[in-house]
Amino acid sequence: MTAADQPEAAAIIDLLGVLAYGELSAFDRMSADARMAPNLELRAAMSQLAAVEMGHYRRLTDRIHELGGDPQQAMAPFIEAVETFHARTDPSTWGEALVKAFVGDGLAADFYTEVAQFVDPETRGLVIDALADTASADFAVREVATLISNDATLASRLSLWGRRLVGEAISQSQRVAAERDALAMLIVGGAGDLQGIAALIDRITKRHTERMTEIGLSN
Amino acid sequence: MTAADQPEAAAIIDLLGVLAYGELSAFDRMSADARMAPNLELRAAMSQLAAVEMGHYRRLTDRIHELGGDPQQAMAPFIEAVETFHARTDPSTWGEALVKAFVGDGLAADFYTEVAQFVDPETRGLVIDALADTASADFAVREVATLISNDATLASRLSLWGRRLVGEAISQSQRVAAERDALAMLIVGGAGDLQGIAALIDRITKRHTERMTEIGLSN
Repeated sequence: MTAADQPEAAAIIDLLGVLAYGELSAFDRMSADARMAPNLELRAAMSQLAAVEMGHYRRLTDRIHELGGDPQQAMAPFIEAVETFHARTDPSTWGEALVKAFVGDGLAADFYTEVAQFVDPETRGLVIDALADTASADFAVREVATLISNDATLASRLSLWGRRLVGEAISQSQRVAAERDALAMLIVGGAGDLQGIAALIDRITKRHTERMTEIGLSN
Repeated sequence: MTAADQPEAAAIIDLLGVLAYGELSAFDRMSADARMAPNLELRAAMSQLAAVEMGHYRRLTDRIHELGGDPQQAMAPFIEAVETFHARTDPSTWGEALVKAFVGDGLAADFYTEVAQFVDPETRGLVIDALADTASADFAVREVATLISNDATLASRLSLWGRRLVGEAISQSQRVAAERDALAMLIVGGAGDLQGIAALIDRITKRHTERMTEIGLSN
């Protein structure tokens, strides 16, 4: 049994911290993006998606408490990276907001699925619960399909936007990995080795490509 | 049995429409106000309060559908009054945001309690459920108490703010009542007569005064 099979609470708290701040900031951004919706039904759908994040946030921070950590301290190291991601991917149209909600939710779900393998059983249960009750971003798929159905220019613009979202997500993840040794070791250890990490990134990228195709955009 | 004992679906849909738009706009405003919080814990507490509104919103609009109505159409007549209320009571400090959350949640709960008496049993169940799962605004009480504990000027400024909130709420309610006959009749009918309405307003005002005292502010 390696140290990575029983990762230290500190690394788990780091992981919970970045996930928790990710949820809190997703709430913040999506609730603001909802204002761009062209009608009340879509505004409500985006608001609903945002609201679900707060349920996840609550469970993640409860777990940080259980492990003897302080949520505010646990989140603090990740604020800058997460906010930089959002500042660089602030949607300026409703279409961009839809693609961001869909791609962001998908990437988050993939990351949750991957890290569920690395963590203690209690934390794993929490992560799996969070995945199960993610509000459906299906409305975003439908709406993007409608928007781009007769507009090739918009389709190519939103495809580019999707690539930018992933690029910024990867760039900020690398920054976090470089700065947070314990968290990086948890993930490297969980993945087995650096080849395991490459395979993990490969899986996440592949799923992202599938989602872009599903939404009618090229990757 | 008078007409008011079995109010028409149209009046109930009107009522559900104003409540639903109230929830959606409360979500929108509180999620934005959360950004003024001085730390992550309080930002999360306000965000949590906002998120709960979307659960209410969902149930209210589901009921509108059940009654054969269209949520967007049902909400449309009330957008202007609700948005005017918010535009005139946009908090410019964290203290104002806290008082607005606390007073607004309280007034909404009182109004839900009153209208629960007027509506059909299915709608009543929904209204009572919404009341039961309202996220606690207790943190707002604690935070306001801390803010004003050594600051008499702030206490008097926030007391004034509380009065303005209620004044604007009453003024926009009167506007809605004047414009929406069916809804006004539902409430007048439910309250019995105009004296009943006066008693209803009296009860709501009394509870508001109690809440202001609880939060450490004068009325």
